[in-house]
Amino acid sequence: MHILVTNDDGVTAPGLLALALALRQIPGADISVLAPHKNWSATGHSKTMHRPLRVWKVRLEDGSQALASDGSPSDCVALALLGLLEKPVDLVVSGINPHPNLGHDVTYSGTVTAAMEAVIFGVPAIAVSLGGGYAPQEILDYRAAAEIARRVALWVGKRGLPREILLNVNVPHVPMEALKGVEITRLGRRVYRDQLVRREDPWGRTYYWLGGEAPTGVPEDGTDIGALARGVVSVTPLQMDMTAHDAFAGLKGLGAEIMGG
Amino acid sequence: MHILVTNDDGVTAPGLLALALALRQIPGADISVLAPHKNWSATGHSKTMHRPLRVWKVRLEDGSQALASDGSPSDCVALALLGLLEKPVDLVVSGINPHPNLGHDVTYSGTVTAAMEAVIFGVPAIAVSLGGGYAPQEILDYRAAAEIARRVALWVGKRGLPREILLNVNVPHVPMEALKGVEITRLGRRVYRDQLVRREDPWGRTYYWLGGEAPTGVPEDGTDIGALARGVVSVTPLQMDMTAHDAFAGLKGLGAEIMGG
Repeated sequence: MHILVTNDDGVTAPGLLALALALRQIPGADISVLAPHKNWSATGHSKTMHRPLRVWKVRLEDGSQALASDGSPSDCVALALLGLLEKPVDLVVSGINPHPNLGHDVTYSGTVTAAMEAVIFGVPAIAVSLGGGYAPQEILDYRAAAEIARRVALWVGKRGLPREILLNVNVPHVPMEALKGVEITRLGRRVYRDQLVRREDPWGRTYYWLGGEAPTGVPEDGTDIGALARGVVSVTPLQMDMTAHDAFAGLKGLGAEIMGG
Repeated sequence: MHILVTNDDGVTAPGLLALALALRQIPGADISVLAPHKNWSATGHSKTMHRPLRVWKVRLEDGSQALASDGSPSDCVALALLGLLEKPVDLVVSGINPHPNLGHDVTYSGTVTAAMEAVIFGVPAIAVSLGGGYAPQEILDYRAAAEIARRVALWVGKRGLPREILLNVNVPHVPMEALKGVEITRLGRRVYRDQLVRREDPWGRTYYWLGGEAPTGVPEDGTDIGALARGVVSVTPLQMDMTAHDAFAGLKGLGAEIMGG
């Protein structure tokens, strides 16, 4: 099994190293790392078409070889799957993101959209995030999340995933033995608390931050947010088809009405 | 009805002007334009959090006032809805994109993700694209697409949309009288033909393009791609909830298996 590891926090992020180390323990697994050289958080599903991309060799902190690119997380996946890696890739695992990716976050998340890119290429994919809120980088412990990622990767390697489906995994920020189980969940309701912050530069010109506090969420049963709130690992299957089939009935008259038919 | 017009091609794009002009013909409509100052095509659902944003006044080619920002399409929507525009926004219309946004394109498309941002804020939104393929900018005629956008906006203004739903509209590139009707569609299957193009710079170092020909699609009945192939306007309702409910059954055993339960 050839696994591509990528992320959106950059190739030097500790979450990526923890993930690569854990996946390397899968017997017979061959791990390639190709990740952005800088942080691309909250950049969404991005494809770089208007400039060329560079790729270069780097070493991770444990001395192992990896590749870095000046492209986005999705670009890294596209580069790898279009032939930059000679050996075909069987699975893409993206992460470990230091913060949760829940509810609407998945549309912004570079961690998740890297996995989307893989799925578009027909390669199964898993996105892994630490679900512990927004703790500072220094106190983050990726070990339980890395171990869960290893187990889920092994499961997907054996069973596969339906086409067009990726798994979005959020792991509570606790030691492995404190995890309260695993739940298959739906996306919950994020509550964003963004605020427009107006400032003036030293020359008196206005600029803006999209600021405000970290998002919260509604911890409903059956959702990713609900699972994390109970110390349970959340595994949400995501589909690429965003068609709102339930909305068809309400739109029935639109065509005739706007075309005067 | 206060309508925010934005796009991902930049505030000087002819598709934006055509859209603003058409929407201004809606009786009682108040149109604000806030769009990126540069082209953000294929950048996905992006939120700028690591740098401040600037906003400045510009004039469109018809002499009307607009706002430009150095943020992404989604940033423009967030800025507007978080209070940069004093008057509350009732509807966001994004476009007109010069190329179609079909199938998986919607996850990459700045035109569509601007509409997603609006929907996350609870404001109904419409993304409009010219469905005529990849014709050169000089020969594009936005008139029919702008007129369809006006009619759909009027319809949504009257009827509203369910929460969490946006409309992705693709209009064939033909004169208004040649349109063959309107169909409510699901997302079709895009066929991407990306290729890794390897080059060498003048100093002998390798770089890469994510190149290849424009995507094609499978023109199945009931899909956006199928509608356009028959000269019909495609209106696809998109939902933000990407949960793959159909995949739950297949994942049933995952938790017990990986936790050794």
